[in-house]
Amino acid sequence: MAQNSPRPIALIVLAAGAGTRMKSDLPKPLHPIGGAPMIAHALAAGRALEPARIVVVTGHGAEAVETALDEIAPEVVCVRQDRQLGTGHAVLQAAPALEGFEGDAVVLYADTPFVSAATLRSMQAARADHDIVVLGFRAADPGRYGRLLMEGERLVRIVEAKDATPEQLGIDLCNSGLLAADAGQLMSLLAQVETDNAAGEYYLTDLAEIAASQGLSATAILCSEAETLGINSRAELAAAEAQFQRLKRAELLDNGVTMTAPETVILSADTWVGRDATVEPYVVFGPSVTVESGATIRAFSHLEAAHVSAGAIVGPYARLRPGAEIGNDAHIGNFVEVKAARIGEGAKVNHLTYIGDAEIGDRTNVGAGTVTCNYDGVFKHRTVIGKDTFIGSDTMLVAPVRVGDKAMTASGSVITRDVPDGAMALARAKQVDKPGLAIRLMTRLREAKAARAKD
Amino acid sequence: MAQNSPRPIALIVLAAGAGTRMKSDLPKPLHPIGGAPMIAHALAAGRALEPARIVVVTGHGAEAVETALDEIAPEVVCVRQDRQLGTGHAVLQAAPALEGFEGDAVVLYADTPFVSAATLRSMQAARADHDIVVLGFRAADPGRYGRLLMEGERLVRIVEAKDATPEQLGIDLCNSGLLAADAGQLMSLLAQVETDNAAGEYYLTDLAEIAASQGLSATAILCSEAETLGINSRAELAAAEAQFQRLKRAELLDNGVTMTAPETVILSADTWVGRDATVEPYVVFGPSVTVESGATIRAFSHLEAAHVSAGAIVGPYARLRPGAEIGNDAHIGNFVEVKAARIGEGAKVNHLTYIGDAEIGDRTNVGAGTVTCNYDGVFKHRTVIGKDTFIGSDTMLVAPVRVGDKAMTASGSVITRDVPDGAMALARAKQVDKPGLAIRLMTRLREAKAARAKD
Amino acid sequence: MAQNSPRPIALIVLAAGAGTRMKSDLPKPLHPIGGAPMIAHALAAGRALEPARIVVVTGHGAEAVETALDEIAPEVVCVRQDRQLGTGHAVLQAAPALEGFEGDAVVLYADTPFVSAATLRSMQAARADHDIVVLGFRAADPGRYGRLLMEGERLVRIVEAKDATPEQLGIDLCNSGLLAADAGQLMSLLAQVETDNAAGEYYLTDLAEIAASQGLSATAILCSEAETLGINSRAELAAAEAQFQRLKRAELLDNGVTMTAPETVILSADTWVGRDATVEPYVVFGPSVTVESGATIRAFSHLEAAHVSAGAIVGPYARLRPGAEIGNDAHIGNFVEVKAARIGEGAKVNHLTYIGDAEIGDRTNVGAGTVTCNYDGVFKHRTVIGKDTFIGSDTMLVAPVRVGDKAMTASGSVITRDVPDGAMALARAKQVDKPGLAIRLMTRLREAKAARAKD
Repeated sequence: MAQNSPRPIALIVLAAGAGTRMKSDLPKPLHPIGGAPMIAHALAAGRALEPARIVVVTGHGAEAVETALDEIAPEVVCVRQDRQLGTGHAVLQAAPALEGFEGDAVVLYADTPFVSAATLRSMQAARADHDIVVLGFRAADPGRYGRLLMEGERLVRIVEAKDATPEQLGIDLCNSGLLAADAGQLMSLLAQVETDNAAGEYYLTDLAEIAASQGLSATAILCSEAETLGINSRAELAAAEAQFQRLKRAELLDNGVTMTAPETVILSADTWVGRDATVEPYVVFGPSVTVESGATIRAFSHLEAAHVSAGAIVGPYARLRPGAEIGNDAHIGNFVEVKAARIGEGAKVNHLTYIGDAEIGDRTNVGAGTVTCNYDGVFKHRTVIGKDTFIGSDTMLVAPVRVGDKAMTASGSVITRDVPDGAMALARAKQVDKPGLAIRLMTRLREAKAARAKD
Repeated sequence: MAQNSPRPIALIVLAAGAGTRMKSDLPKPLHPIGGAPMIAHALAAGRALEPARIVVVTGHGAEAVETALDEIAPEVVCVRQDRQLGTGHAVLQAAPALEGFEGDAVVLYADTPFVSAATLRSMQAARADHDIVVLGFRAADPGRYGRLLMEGERLVRIVEAKDATPEQLGIDLCNSGLLAADAGQLMSLLAQVETDNAAGEYYLTDLAEIAASQGLSATAILCSEAETLGINSRAELAAAEAQFQRLKRAELLDNGVTMTAPETVILSADTWVGRDATVEPYVVFGPSVTVESGATIRAFSHLEAAHVSAGAIVGPYARLRPGAEIGNDAHIGNFVEVKAARIGEGAKVNHLTYIGDAEIGDRTNVGAGTVTCNYDGVFKHRTVIGKDTFIGSDTMLVAPVRVGDKAMTASGSVITRDVPDGAMALARAKQVDKPGLAIRLMTRLREAKAARAKD
Repeated sequence: MAQNSPRPIALIVLAAGAGTRMKSDLPKPLHPIGGAPMIAHALAAGRALEPARIVVVTGHGAEAVETALDEIAPEVVCVRQDRQLGTGHAVLQAAPALEGFEGDAVVLYADTPFVSAATLRSMQAARADHDIVVLGFRAADPGRYGRLLMEGERLVRIVEAKDATPEQLGIDLCNSGLLAADAGQLMSLLAQVETDNAAGEYYLTDLAEIAASQGLSATAILCSEAETLGINSRAELAAAEAQFQRLKRAELLDNGVTMTAPETVILSADTWVGRDATVEPYVVFGPSVTVESGATIRAFSHLEAAHVSAGAIVGPYARLRPGAEIGNDAHIGNFVEVKAARIGEGAKVNHLTYIGDAEIGDRTNVGAGTVTCNYDGVFKHRTVIGKDTFIGSDTMLVAPVRVGDKAMTASGSVITRDVPDGAMALARAKQVDKPGLAIRLMTRLREAKAARAKD
């Protein structure tokens, strides 16, 4: 029965369940952890086996799941389980998609996102000595989990909690549901599973007993309970997110990132931060953010699909939206929003500003209250500002517009035409002082108020 | 001694204590949990019994407590305990306010906010078989709590920790202070309590022994220690707030709200969020916020007395102040403040804007840096903007002012008069470029700096 | 051997280690806890002994550490350990700096920041009866710590974990590394330490055995494990910061500060907040902030080197930068930045404003979107605004500039010249409405879009 590994691998990922307890219209596999759909985590672990094929079994919300997979994992083949007839039935749906495939099948679950690549490799290795390899774990509270009945290293049966004897309920070795077997043999065994149970479903777990009755060898290998964490409710999803965050924060600390309060930093699965970069408390990283070594992200900042270069300082209260590229030693200050814009080396955008669809040259200083007016109600337009330029406070840059190098705009100006290099652009009215008018106005207002109060 | 329940109920809520350890000028019953005064939580639990009367015994800070109760619980009768002579004495102060009342009295505490309605109903039910029902709990660390001395289900005595024998100190069944009894009998028993103890006070706990000596039947029913959590210091208040937040977050998750980091979301007692609404990390809900199903509240948002409709997106960094009503599919973006304003369906206010005392029509787009200038130094005025209108960036709307439907304002304009439907309003100076002036100005400034450095 | 205390004290603070596991270019002693370099905490504890001299032994990153000490502890003498030959060798480097000093030496560590002054005083007191006093602790997980071998109250030897017998490994009494001894005797004992160990280093811990062999008396006094927390990795630094925050928050609560979610408030070592001041969730205090009794710091605020007076309300989303002084009953609202500015009594700066290098008079109201244009590209200039003045929304104050008392500026004005007391200053263009133009523009844009879509 022993085989030479590694054999080609096919992943079968079960993603058809209803997820009723999530109380959500979003299919469970698409609920995010670390900013990525739950199923992406299971796929990432599985990809470490370099699978030749990946089959995802969809069902509830199949269309939404398939659309999402098109984007995040276009190599996946989706098959539908139209009726929910149990996990055994679900795996069987993958059979047509494995037509002609010779090798091992590894069954994963969209809602078991924490299984590690190392554990999957152990399962793969154990296949050298056994026909079926089931992933088990010792449960602190075995409760409703299926129990693994072992004789030595041989797995003889998996018994569901509701069918277990009191003695069997005393076993803490539980079934994660993950398994590995020869793909063809798996499908032929599954064809023998029956529905003579309370739920009238085809149980994947019946495999162990059927295999044993046919003289095949099954075993279980173990991982930590944390790896097999399944997600069935909002509370479990929140717990999974918390575990993801703990692991990801520890990874960043290990890499030499300075975080004084790492427990307050929200990370995404693909967040990358360099050594000796500083991340202050209360920073949220959406997907696809990279922060170079030596950059500083100050408190209350929010970053999505942005890049921050070495020496740059971002925040506090900076919002970098997709396409923000912050150059070396640039400063993005408080209440500043940057979208689809490149900020040059050493440039400063320090206060209360919106920079969208723009390019800011090196060493240019953008004053407080500046806005790139990029939207005309229908189209978006670009603003380009040169190097060593000084944009006065409250400058409106009505795009499309270009301000040259070493130029200036006077504060409060609305710039609607390009400004040449070295020029000063003004667009403002003259100051007029009306002596005593403030006092007269206030007196009148206060009298009106007093009169109203009297009425 | 048995009685037919349910009998009419009178709540007696003790709220007279000094709360010295709070180190605060605010009376302890008014310190908030989940945005509502502590005493409001005890009252909410008690109201589940549909009491015929509620008597609150005030003392320290009585005036402030009574003023607050006038607003949050106008049906309450307040009586004053002018001198702090013990809990027995405090309950006795309620006697005049119960004149003519026939039924049961239930004694609650302003600083025991977590007792559940279910527990109070169990006490009420136990009154069918006993004259006095005391609420007890098993303490992890009994320490300074009074101990309940039981003989079977009969409570024979309550002994204060400081008067307890070593053997009695070994008992972990403790007194919460809450009790239920016939109102008239309670008062007549209390009249027999004496002050022959170290503190010279009238102890409510002496009731049990007096009742037993008169052949009356007392019992204890149990609840979890968490329910009887009492609050005596800032640290205990913070722990109570944390417990409140945990319970409220779990409630929202159970209802199908999407929160990736629920532990970072601050809720109020009356926060309501619909199924499949998303609340991102670091959102603060002040009192009276409702968020409809399918709306999204992004990170770092702060909401008070506001309503967010289905499909709307709020934040990040949005501040909704009282009276903000955000329409279906509307967007409120970063660094935007909305106060006493209705934002129409599909309208967008995306950046760095203050909307106060205003109405924004459906599908209208408000540019970055816009301000409704609602205050003239004495009065507040309204701004009304029509549908399908485009407010250019940095538009000042000097209220009272009306901008029509399908209108526009040019960016940087100060709008002081009404703008008709379909019109474009401009109020800005022409742009003038002065060639080379920027370079000359900068050269002069740098020379000045160099000269200063030389001096 | 007994001596009369208190004798003069010299602190020897070891700060030479490489801190490789921090994966940082910043020397370990300078990584901050509570906003202050780690070594500052050890120095603060040591200063409670009123030391006559403080010697810091630097090594890795010596220059950076010495520069930092110049600023935060100018009284310190730094000596360099050029090669890392062990802790015994490190302490010996202090000998020249103690030339002529008669008294006790107390050895501290830059990376052991939580040792308390009380513990150090106990060590000092124990010197009355013993020649050498070592600080020990009972470890929950003794692991790699050195073990203290005691005979009664006499310490006979310190054995490194890697040299310990299995029996010795069973001991949970561990060595913190801190010790006290006569300075001269310490140096003469250290001269006898040899390097006959696996690492070939001079171990400070060999002192105990050498002392015993010469008939000197050594002892150990104990403190909690938390006090001896050493910091070797980013994760341990984060744990230390978390412990600092817990202690500091508890201190504020004890002083009567109102914090509904203290676990979300980030404090600095020198944060001072008065009784009945309120700090809402998600507030970050950088160094040197003082908040008077009765002030309110609202959610999401960020304060550095600022002072907030009684009755003032700051935030939500307010950023106070160094030099912000907020007067009694003043309001600083959302998305407002204040730097190096004095805000007068009862003044209001409520929305989307930048106030830098400025003075705002009592009761003055600053409208939304106002900016003090303090920077001309080279110099910073001051803005001074009088009392009872009304600054209209979106006023640009081009500094240096002065606005008088009881004056006004019209919203949208750029103020470049001083405004006299009582005057109204305007600098804006007239509003012009172009009927139907908005509709024509939008129609044209939409047609262009449709045309593009067709192409």
